[in-house]
Formats: sequence, C-alpha cells, structure tokens
Amino acid sequence: MLSFENDYSCGATPEILARLAETNTTTFPGYGSDDICASAKAKIREACGAPDADVWFLVGGTQTNQTIIDAITPPYAGVVAAATGHVNVHEAGAIEASGHKVLTLPHHEGKIDAKELNEYCATFYADANYEHMVFPGCVYVSQATEYGTLYTKAELEAIAEVCHAYHMPLFVDGARLGYALTATGNDVTLEDLARIADVFYIGGTKVGALFGEAVVFTHHGDYSYTPKHFLTLIKQHGALLAKGWLLGLQFDTLFTDGLYMRIARHANEVADRIRTALREKGYTLTFEAPTNQIFITLDEPTRERLEEHVRLGFMERADETHTVMRICTSWHTTDEQVDELLALL
Amino acid sequence: MLSFENDYSCGATPEILARLAETNTTTFPGYGSDDICASAKAKIREACGAPDADVWFLVGGTQTNQTIIDAITPPYAGVVAAATGHVNVHEAGAIEASGHKVLTLPHHEGKIDAKELNEYCATFYADANYEHMVFPGCVYVSQATEYGTLYTKAELEAIAEVCHAYHMPLFVDGARLGYALTATGNDVTLEDLARIADVFYIGGTKVGALFGEAVVFTHHGDYSYTPKHFLTLIKQHGALLAKGWLLGLQFDTLFTDGLYMRIARHANEVADRIRTALREKGYTLTFEAPTNQIFITLDEPTRERLEEHVRLGFMERADETHTVMRICTSWHTTDEQVDELLALL
Amino acid sequence: MLSFENDYSCGATPEILARLAETNTTTFPGYGSDDICASAKAKIREACGAPDADVWFLVGGTQTNQTIIDAITPPYAGVVAAATGHVNVHEAGAIEASGHKVLTLPHHEGKIDAKELNEYCATFYADANYEHMVFPGCVYVSQATEYGTLYTKAELEAIAEVCHAYHMPLFVDGARLGYALTATGNDVTLEDLARIADVFYIGGTKVGALFGEAVVFTHHGDYSYTPKHFLTLIKQHGALLAKGWLLGLQFDTLFTDGLYMRIARHANEVADRIRTALREKGYTLTFEAPTNQIFITLDEPTRERLEEHVRLGFMERADETHTVMRICTSWHTTDEQVDELLALL
Amino acid sequence: MLSFENDYSCGATPEILARLAETNTTTFPGYGSDDICASAKAKIREACGAPDADVWFLVGGTQTNQTIIDAITPPYAGVVAAATGHVNVHEAGAIEASGHKVLTLPHHEGKIDAKELNEYCATFYADANYEHMVFPGCVYVSQATEYGTLYTKAELEAIAEVCHAYHMPLFVDGARLGYALTATGNDVTLEDLARIADVFYIGGTKVGALFGEAVVFTHHGDYSYTPKHFLTLIKQHGALLAKGWLLGLQFDTLFTDGLYMRIARHANEVADRIRTALREKGYTLTFEAPTNQIFITLDEPTRERLEEHVRLGFMERADETHTVMRICTSWHTTDEQVDELLALL
Repeated sequence: MLSFENDYSCGATPEILARLAETNTTTFPGYGSDDICASAKAKIREACGAPDADVWFLVGGTQTNQTIIDAITPPYAGVVAAATGHVNVHEAGAIEASGHKVLTLPHHEGKIDAKELNEYCATFYADANYEHMVFPGCVYVSQATEYGTLYTKAELEAIAEVCHAYHMPLFVDGARLGYALTATGNDVTLEDLARIADVFYIGGTKVGALFGEAVVFTHHGDYSYTPKHFLTLIKQHGALLAKGWLLGLQFDTLFTDGLYMRIARHANEVADRIRTALREKGYTLTFEAPTNQIFITLDEPTRERLEEHVRLGFMERADETHTVMRICTSWHTTDEQVDELLALL
Repeated sequence: MLSFENDYSCGATPEILARLAETNTTTFPGYGSDDICASAKAKIREACGAPDADVWFLVGGTQTNQTIIDAITPPYAGVVAAATGHVNVHEAGAIEASGHKVLTLPHHEGKIDAKELNEYCATFYADANYEHMVFPGCVYVSQATEYGTLYTKAELEAIAEVCHAYHMPLFVDGARLGYALTATGNDVTLEDLARIADVFYIGGTKVGALFGEAVVFTHHGDYSYTPKHFLTLIKQHGALLAKGWLLGLQFDTLFTDGLYMRIARHANEVADRIRTALREKGYTLTFEAPTNQIFITLDEPTRERLEEHVRLGFMERADETHTVMRICTSWHTTDEQVDELLALL
Repeated sequence: MLSFENDYSCGATPEILARLAETNTTTFPGYGSDDICASAKAKIREACGAPDADVWFLVGGTQTNQTIIDAITPPYAGVVAAATGHVNVHEAGAIEASGHKVLTLPHHEGKIDAKELNEYCATFYADANYEHMVFPGCVYVSQATEYGTLYTKAELEAIAEVCHAYHMPLFVDGARLGYALTATGNDVTLEDLARIADVFYIGGTKVGALFGEAVVFTHHGDYSYTPKHFLTLIKQHGALLAKGWLLGLQFDTLFTDGLYMRIARHANEVADRIRTALREKGYTLTFEAPTNQIFITLDEPTRERLEEHVRLGFMERADETHTVMRICTSWHTTDEQVDELLALL
Repeated sequence: MLSFENDYSCGATPEILARLAETNTTTFPGYGSDDICASAKAKIREACGAPDADVWFLVGGTQTNQTIIDAITPPYAGVVAAATGHVNVHEAGAIEASGHKVLTLPHHEGKIDAKELNEYCATFYADANYEHMVFPGCVYVSQATEYGTLYTKAELEAIAEVCHAYHMPLFVDGARLGYALTATGNDVTLEDLARIADVFYIGGTKVGALFGEAVVFTHHGDYSYTPKHFLTLIKQHGALLAKGWLLGLQFDTLFTDGLYMRIARHANEVADRIRTALREKGYTLTFEAPTNQIFITLDEPTRERLEEHVRLGFMERADETHTVMRICTSWHTTDEQVDELLALL
C-alpha cells in the first residue's frame, strides 16, 4: 500500500548503508569517543560556520528534547513553547517527567510570536506573585514546526532577542531541519541558526539516517554554553548509545558533499508537486507551509476513499464532518509514488 | 495599615490557641498516631456522613495538592485542571516536579465545564496518536475556586460522571472549603462533597487554623481508595509533621460544635456587606462570586488611592489602565475593619 | 505512661506559646516576609557571628533536607552521606524522589571520616568510567548524628577541606543542633559551624519549638551561596508555610536571651544523669555519645520489663536475643520523669 | 591496536547487515508496530517457551533498566540490587533520576544471595519505623553479572521465591544473556529464565546487534504483568525508537536458526582459551567466571606492558600496586586476535 504517512518509514540513504558495511568489522572505542564522531563533529561545525560549537549525537527526538531541556532549564523554571510544540503534545510527558513545566504560548500555524513571548515574560515579572510561579527558563521552537511552517530569519532573531533579554537560552528543535533549510522561500541558513540559537539539533531520523540527532551548542554568547558534564546527563537520561560511532558515521556521511541538503531538497520538491496538484483539484490546504508536510482538511467520504489506497497521517478532527490529515514526503519519496498519489486525488 | 490582602494573615481561632495551651505539656506519640488525631478524624467522618472515609492531616495546600496528585495519578498520566487552577499557576511547578503534567481546560470564572471535560477526554482517546500523549489521569477542581466562584451540586455531579466514565478520580481542593459551604446560594454540602468527590481536602490554613489541611479519601467507589502506603508517600514528599497532634488538635477543635462552619459563615457575611457597598458605589466586580474573595477591576488612580490605606491582593493586570485586585475577608475580619474599608471606598 | 521515646513528643517552650497568644490577632504579610521573621534572622546571624548569612525557615527536617540537597546538588551528582544518615535511611526516599542518589560512606558511630571521604572522591575521579557514574556533589553530615555522637571541630574542618577540594558544599543537618552545641565535651560552637559549613540548619522541632528548622546559608566562600530563587524552590517542594511568621516567631523567641541553648543544655544534663545510672547498674551503652540520645543494647526480658512502664525508641535488632533501644531526653524532660525512669532500671 | 576492551566495539553480525540492506527501501509503520517486530516477538516467545509473554524492543541497556524499573516499582519503593549492580554503579543515577532508590545488598562476585535478600526484607518489615523508609519494591539481578559470574538455576529460583514472598517482581538484566546461556557449566536455559523471572531482557547490543534489547514480560504469575500503557512509558523515558523495525529486524535475525546462541558460544570458547593460557602463565584471575569477561589482577609493570599492545577494560584499583583489568571477548573476536593476545601474555 502506498504510504505518505510520515518521514520515518524507510531505512537510510544508500551512502549510509554502504558506510555501515565498510566499518562493520572495525573496532571502535565506545560512547562517541571515536574518530568518525570527531570527523562528523568537525564537518557540522564547518557547515554551521561555528568553529567553537560543541556537537553531540543522540538517538531520537524525544530523548534529545528531554535531555537538552532538562540540562538548560533551571530547577525553578519551565520551557516556553507553542501550545502545539512537540514537547507539549507528543512526548508523553517526557519534559514533566524530568521535572519541568511546559509553559505554553498561543501558536500561529505552529509558530510562537516574539511580541507575545515578550508580553508573556513582562507579565510574568510584573506579577506580584511571580516567585510562586514557574519561571520562563528557556524557549523551545521547532524549525520546521509541527505544522510544516517556517520561521523567517527576522522572526527567529526577534525571538532570540526576547530570550536573551530575559536570560533564557533559545533551543531550536530541528527534527526536520533539513526540510526547513531547503524549502522554497526559506531565508534561515544553518549558519544563521548557529548564530541565532543557543542550542539546536539537526535531525537525522527524518532526514536520511536510520536514527540520530546532532545537537549543537553554539557557544556564541552567555546562554550558549554546554551544560556541565553533559555526557553524564545524557547517560542519566538513558540516551547514551554504546556504539556511538553509528551516530557519527551517519552524520559524517550526511555532511559529506552536501548529501543532507540534497536529499532534503528532494522531499520538498516532490511536496511542491503534490501541493500544486492539490490546489488544482480544489483540496483545502489547512496551512500555507512550504516543507515536506502537507496538511489537508478532508470530508469523510474523501478521507475514506483516499485511505483505501494510501496511508496518511492523522492530525486532528477539524469538526464533526472533517478531519485534518497529513501527506508527508521524505528524502526517499520516489517520483513514481508521487505519480500514484496524484492519480488518486 | 488595614489589610484585606488575604485569608491567611492572622493566627488561629481562640479555641485552638486555648487547646494548644492545655495540651502543651502532654506527651504524644508522633506523626499523627495520637488520640486527638483519631478524634478529629472521627468528627470529620461524621461531618461528611462518610463512615468509611480515610482522613489524613497535612500542613499546607501546595504540599497537599502535590502529594495527593502524585499519589493518585498514574505515571503515564497528568492531572486535568482549569487553566486558572492553583496547581497550574501558583505552586511553582510542584506538580511537574513530581513528574506529572497539568492538562488545562479553559476556565469559566475559575470553573471547568463537564461537557468540555468530556470533549477533552473523547478527543484524546479518538486521537490516533494518543499513546504518545499524556493521558488524562485525574481531575482537579477547587471549591471555592481561585476566583471565589462555586460549583453547583449538579455541576460537580456532571464532572464526577465524566471522571468515572474515563477512569479518573475526582479531586477537590478545598483550601477555602469553609467559605464555599457557607456561601449564600451554595447547594453543595460536605456530605454531598464526600459522596461526589473521590478525594478532597478541608482547608484549615485559611479557615481558622494556624495551618493544616484535612485530606478525605471518601471510599465510596472504585476511584475512592487511599493510595497504598500513603503515610510513606507523605513522608517522601517532606509533608509528614513530626508533632502530628498539632494538626489533629486544630481540626478536632474546628469540628466541635460547628466552629468551622460558624467562622467561615462570618467571613462570607462581611464579604456580602462589602459587595453591597461596592455595587452601591459603582465599582466593577470582576466576577459574580458569593464567597470571601471579591475581585474588583480598578483604574489606576482608584487603586493607588485605596492602596495608601489598605492592603489588597494583586490578581492581574486587566489592561493598560486597569488592574484586577482582590478584597479578601476571613474568619477573623472584624466589623470595625469592614467599616473602615467601606469608609475608604 | 512514661515516655522517653523521642524528643518531639511535647509542644513548645512556654515563651513560644505566650508569643503565639500575644500575636494571634495581629495581621502579618505571608510567606515569611514579616518583621518577626526579619528579627529572628538578625538574631540568628548574630548568634552565628555571620553577618552575611542568609536565613530561611522551613517546617520540618525531611522537607528541609530534601529542599536544600535538591537545590545545592548538580543534576549529574548525588549527596555523600554516612550509610546511617537520616537522608539515607529514614526519609522514605525523599532525596531520590527529587532525583538525586545518596552516595554512602561507612559510618563510625554515625560519623563519616574525612580520610575516607577523600579516598572516596579520589577513587571516583581516578575511575576511568567516572563520567558514567554519579558524581559526589555535596556532603551531608548530622550534628549531633543519628547515634547521638558529635563531630569535633577538627573533624568538621577536615571534612570541609575535602569538600572544597572536590568542589562540594558541606551541609550540616542540625535537627538536634541545640543538643550538640551544649553537650559535655563539645568543641564546635555555632560560630564555628557557620564558619565551617556552607549551609546548615538549626533544629527547632526537637529543641523547644512546635515545629520549624532555621536554614543558614553561611556565605563565607565559593560554596556558601544561596541557590537562585530559593523561595520558589521551597514552594516547589511544598515547603513554604503560608503563615510564615509562625516560624519566625518561634526562632525569634528561641534566640532571645539564650533560650535555645538553655533548654538544650537541660536535656543533656538529664541525659547525663541517666547515663550515669545506666552505667552504675551495668547496662550496655551501645555508643559513647554525650547528647540527649542514649542507646542501650537490651536483652529481651529487660526490654519487655522496661517497656511495660516506659516508651522507648526502637533502633534496631542487635542479634537474635538483643535489641538496641533509645532513651531520648528533651528540653521538656522533667527531673520527676528522670527519677521515675531511674527507679525502673 | 588489538582491543579486548569490551563487547560493544564492533558492528553487527553479517546476517543483520544483509537484512538491513534488503529492507532499506521498504516502507514500515513506525514505533514497532510493523510485521518484522511481530515476527521477532513470536520467535522470542517460542525460544522462551512462553506463549503468553509480552515482548518489547528498546535501544540500550541503561534506558531499558530505567524504563522497566520505573514502571514496575511502586512510588514508595526502591529496587534491591547488588552493590555492584550496573544500575547502582554505572548508569549515572538514571534510576534515582526517575525517583527510585537503589537498595543495595552485599555482592558475592557480583551476585546477591537469596538468604541475605530474605534477611533484608524480614529486617525491613520488622523495623518499627519501616513506614519512614524506602520499601523493597522489586529485585534486580544481572545474568551474567557485571563480574562475568552466573547464577545457577537453584539460586535464581531461591531469589524468586523470596521476591514473591515479599510481593516484589524479579527483574533480570540480560545485557550479556547470550554469554550466560552458552557458558560452560551454566544450567539456566532461556525457558528457565522465562519461568523464573517476572521480566528480563535479552541483550542485543553486546551480542551481535548494532543496538537493541528485547524486554520480555513473562506473564506467568501475579508479578509478571506488563505495566499499563507501557508504550507511553517507553516514550516518556525517551526510549521509543521511531524506526522500530530496526530493532525487530535485528532480533528476528538473531533468533533465526539459533544465531544468537551460536555467536554467543563462540565468545565463551575464545574466552576459555584465554583463561587457560592465563592460568598456565601464572596470572591471577580475580574471579572464577565462565563467561566472556575475564578479570585479572595485574601489577603495574605487567599492566603497562600489556596496555602498550592491547586495549583492556578498567575495572578498579585493587591496591596501591595492583589494578583489576578486564579482558572482554565478544561474538566478533577472531581466533587471530586471540593468538595475538596469547603471544603478549
């Protein structure tokens, strides 16, 4: 059955599989202390234009969010996020299980707004009872967001400015960063991100790797530090991979010869084809979003008809008679799959 | 300076002080295993019409909320509360520090709505991804609410029905329960509460005691159990008072000869006098609420004028030029204090 | 029935009760922001010879230990304590519930040894795998210990030296500090303690107060800081008393005219009488300890005989036929009670 | 450089790599809901002789221990383990970070003793203050242990009997289970384990897989249940792999045609060769242990000489002049590597 259900339903780019085969009998030291990890980190620092950045590799998104947020948020504080943020909705309480509240802002197609963030913080500190409340301790945004939308450079800079005015590091969840960086109309480069964010990660699981997220502590200002004994914190969160080179190897491959960007761009290109077709056929796109996630609001007969032939992602019930569904392309979506899908619409 | 800032700014009823003096040199076993605690529990069970109820005494509201919610909420679940609920706003993240998310519903003058609760739960279980989300595990309401409003019996029964349909215990924060039970128009008796809620507490700190909250596990149905080894859980939360009889003594006194209700009613009566005067003088009451908390929306000149002479509670900024302030009466508010206040209005 | 079961089985010194009565109708601001708390803090700073110290009042020992240790221990670290330390044995896992491991050292009649502490830390950092282990993050000792024994000044200084060599604050649990300061042979004054420890508390619950522990951050060196937003951390641990002046009032009274030391000394004096009698009558004192706790190893017939007439504290089974029991005096033990006890021996 | 440092320093068995290549472009549903996981689970249930068992796949050992122990241990309880247990020493406080204390028993070459466990529990419940202490809530043992030693069937049965007498599930960490099952002299089969333990895991990371541990809830008695909503708990611990079929695929391969046992046996056979040589050459084996970990106590000159040519694992300093080092074979150790090592001894 055809599947546009999500962007983590196939293996890895062939280059990664080949590299796995090549290195399979080599002996490596454990926990990421190997040379391939070192090489991958160097390539990421270079791609970020951030020679002082500190790079770490973790396995998956939720554990990365949990480990970073727990490490950068003071004990008296929470993480500010869009109400629709992955950490608020789809991580089974992983943030709270580590002791921190998610402080929510209204979302605008998945994004928070710098002015509303500023207002939130100003109101917090103006409240006579603020010492009895959870402090805003860091800020979490996703690029691309859970709705496939993108922050502009100006928007991210404005958010960072508020963050730093209120002594909060800015953390960017880049589970789908590749798809953000290569989207039509995007103006935020990896170098921009490394300059604006205090910590972010480059998603591998959804962009070409079997698994893996590359965390970058950007080290450009007061809030861009690596938390003390971060390796121990990773271990404590159960997130330290024994065979760490498996992570380094994947990112080393993805950051060689522009592979990461190239495969991500492909996913956007096929998504663009689908968006065009959807518009032509009169479908309702739930959001204007330029990345690999396309949300459409379907009436039930259409949804049922489509789901006979293609797996889509469930987003939410829109109303009694409509559901928001997701068409998700990825680095491995083929032109044939797109043709098949278009024929069904 | 005159103070209507809150309802925890004086000591205790004279009867409690006398009892403290009487028993000061008596030797008691520790941690609430004494006879006075046993007597107080018996009186509370009787007042609740709940002979099988299990009663415990803790020191303060936040620790009581934290200990109960942690004890009754499964590890994969959070507590559903109004966005304005004390546990969500004013407990410095105590619930999250114990590992649980607060799942918020919109509030209606501080109250949640049974239909919206039902919709929340139905939507949750209808979501294809619900296993990746925080389950609704128990429901928290306050009677009176943080805005001084009250649930009717029908409203509480409707909430309880939804709770039990979704296998959630209903927990009622009664930090100001005395003021709820004795308010004009209230139709929820203590017996009703013990029949409807699975666990609730009777607030002492704000109603006549130096400190203390009496937790009642009502034991009337599947969700009305006492969590296993609850004494150990209290201790683990740092909430077990060594000289436990000090708590029993206060509740034993408050539940003798109707003292608790009598002093609470007084606070409502003086609040009613103030409300009448405020209306006559054209003040804007922010909410219609019948208990000891009166919220008024003040312009800045009025606020400044009043605050020269009387301490009020800060609630929130209403807009650029108005602030919501709280006038709070209590069991110890005197007629003279009310006269003085009325003269200032 | 006669009771030497513990030192928290009576109310408070009459001076405290009188003060409660005097202030009962006075209006105070909440959460310890009142003048009596300010006065009590000033007196404690003076008694400690530590004008820069920062003083806070909490209700009970376990919550104080939990709140302080959670606040001063980094997330990658645990608290080092004697295996017999209260935090390791009798707090129902309160430290672990806040996320920290208790790292145990062998005890010597309840005390840890500076050399063994040093060896522990040296071994830790010499271990090739230490980043996978729990770092020693702070050190917890009790004065007096759980066995009634005392650290000498030289012992505490040696421990502090190791602490600071390994970047760990030294925290002294003073639940029974009064009994330590006034014991025969003690050479550690309150001023010494404020100079040596980074944070400690002065126990009220067991020494004259209804409840209450006065936490002193001594502010004399790099490790003697108050954790940021400590008020919020107290609240988050459910440990912030609404009517905070009740705590200030008790410590203000205890630190007026030497009351604290005077009542503590009395408990030691009567304990000395009991120790002398026990020795004369051939009882086995389990430890040589000069404070208000006397441990005796009893055979079963003797234990049963005594327990018909006097409540003793249970310590542990020594072997098949012997039990270690505790005779505990306190500030409120009367000469008549001691006479009665001696007659029973 | 030759390496006998650990058993997680190479990739995976060629069969797994081949399978990865074969399935790389297939589309799978996420989070382990795919057919290969279903097939792997069926094979594991069959190998365990446990048709009702419930099988789950996680990525690594620490996250598996953390997730299981948090899920099966009541909030008032801790996990009982050998002082040398991995959860007590080498997981950076992961258990405590989830709120549970590790309650330690003395170890006997890495093993706990049923009688001592029984004594621990009996003493606990006989303590008059046990409600103030951390309850023994479950029991953790490793097979093989951290010292390479093995429990006999009789020993495990005796431990299980104590566990169930005190209402504790028995959890067996099988990170090196393959090496245990195939060791000379071992009498505990996989079927035995599934009959005796309430939950255990079959280690893949150290036995032929790139990563992965297969958790088996054995479902044979009161304590052998799967915790409610375990998928959500896995997610909350950051341990749910998006591309779950990667785990299923590895275990499906390992449990086809006896591969798991065959490669594990090889590691023991080469370890036996090394042990024989060590004995012949007069080395001191620190423990008598039949599995793939060989501990030897080396004087410094010998250690330095060896470490010029071969990477060994650090265990601990034995004394001023000796260190305990580990020679670790694995499924991928070649005869040539062993020859090289023997030549160095």
